[in-house]
Amino acid sequence: MQLIIANKLYSSWSMRPWLVMRAIGLDFEETVTPLRQPDTAERIRVFSPSGRVPVLIDGEVTVWESLAIICYLADKFPDQQIWPNGAVARAHAMSIAMEMHGGFQALRQACPMNLGKRFAAPTMGDDLKANVARIEQIWRETRARFGGDGPYLFGTRFSAADAMFAPVATRIDSYSIPVAADTRAYIDTIYANPHFAQWRTAAFKEPWHIPAFEEGLEVIEDLKGAGGT
Amino acid sequence: MQLIIANKLYSSWSMRPWLVMRAIGLDFEETVTPLRQPDTAERIRVFSPSGRVPVLIDGEVTVWESLAIICYLADKFPDQQIWPNGAVARAHAMSIAMEMHGGFQALRQACPMNLGKRFAAPTMGDDLKANVARIEQIWRETRARFGGDGPYLFGTRFSAADAMFAPVATRIDSYSIPVAADTRAYIDTIYANPHFAQWRTAAFKEPWHIPAFEEGLEVIEDLKGAGGT
Repeated sequence: MQLIIANKLYSSWSMRPWLVMRAIGLDFEETVTPLRQPDTAERIRVFSPSGRVPVLIDGEVTVWESLAIICYLADKFPDQQIWPNGAVARAHAMSIAMEMHGGFQALRQACPMNLGKRFAAPTMGDDLKANVARIEQIWRETRARFGGDGPYLFGTRFSAADAMFAPVATRIDSYSIPVAADTRAYIDTIYANPHFAQWRTAAFKEPWHIPAFEEGLEVIEDLKGAGGT
Repeated sequence: MQLIIANKLYSSWSMRPWLVMRAIGLDFEETVTPLRQPDTAERIRVFSPSGRVPVLIDGEVTVWESLAIICYLADKFPDQQIWPNGAVARAHAMSIAMEMHGGFQALRQACPMNLGKRFAAPTMGDDLKANVARIEQIWRETRARFGGDGPYLFGTRFSAADAMFAPVATRIDSYSIPVAADTRAYIDTIYANPHFAQWRTAAFKEPWHIPAFEEGLEVIEDLKGAGGT
C-alpha cells in the first residue's frame, strides 16, 4: 500500500488516514508531495483524480479522500475495530466523524493546521464560538457515554473518530483557544499518542515553509524553531 | 426505523439517506420538521445531538448525519449493495461520495437546493466553474468506468454515490447552469428515478415557503406554483 500525503506540518486531511494506518499497524509506503511547489499539481495528478491528497493506492484500488480511505480500510480490516464495536457506539462514531468531515468551517478557516507555531487566539465570532462549543460537547458526551477508562473517545483504542478529530485538537492548541479542563485533557491525549508524536516530529524536520498559511496571524511561539525537532 | 428530515423542497442533506432507504425498499416512519419555524430548534433537539437533520433512529441507535446514516445502513444491510460490489468500484464510490460530502462549497453557497423554482444562472466565478467542471468529470469518468449500461453512476442499481449527487443534479438544473450533454443525461436520470420523483411531488405539496432561501436570486420559473403538484 502506498499513501500519498502533503506536508505533515500543514495537511490535516493527510494526517487522518495516516494515524489510522499506524494505529492498526499497517505496513505502507509513504510519499510526501509538498504543497505550493512548482510541480505540486503535476505530482498529485499522477495519483489523484481529484487533484488532492491524501490518496491511497492498494493494488488496483485508488481511494482519494481522507474519510473514504478510512472507510475503505475499515471495510478491508473489519477485525481492527477502526470503527468501535457495537452498533450504538459505531453509529455514534460515524456520526461525529462525518459531522467533522462536513462541518466546522469557521474553525477550519480561521485556524489552518500548523503544527510548528503557536498563535494568538483569533477573534471569536459567533460561528467560531459555536464550532468550539460543539466540539467540546462532542468530546465530552462521547467520552462520558463510550469512553470507559479512556483515554480515547471510545476507550483504550484509538479509533477513526479520534483520527478525524486529531487535527482539530491541534488547532485548538495552536491557536490558544480557551477550553474546559476535560477538553484540554483530550487534546493532551492526542499529543501523547505515539503515532501523532512521530508525525509531529517528522513535520518539524520538513524543509518547507509556506508563509501564505500564516498571513494575518500573530505568532506567539515558534515550536519548530525552538527545538521541536 | 424513523427518519427525521427537514423540508423536502430545501433539504439536500435530508434527501440523500431518504433516497437510499427507498432504493433498498426499507419500511420506515418519516418525520418532517420544517426549517425556520418558531419551534424548529426545539423539535430537532429532541432527536438530534447536533441540532441538525437528518437523523435516523433505529431502536437504540441514533445516527445523525446524512452520510453516516448511509454508511450505517450499508453496514447493516450488506446484501443491498448500497455501495457497489467489487473493491475497485466500491473505493471509487466512497471517494466520490466523500469528496461531495466535504467539498463543492461554491456551488452549495451560490445554489441552495430549491426544487420548486428555476433560477437564472449565477455569476460563474472561478470556484463555481471549477466545482461544476469537477462534477461533470466525476460523473463522466465514473459512468465510463463503472456505469456499464447505466443509467446510474455504477450501472443499473441506484447507489449511495447517486444519492450523494442527486441534490447536486437538481442544483445544476434549478440554476440553469450550462453543462455537457452527458451531464444533462445523468441529471435526467436522477429526475426519472421514481423515488426522487415521489420526493419532489411531496416537496411541491409542502405548505412552507422560506423567502430567505431565495434572497438575491432571479426566479425565472415557479415550478411548484405552475402545477408541479
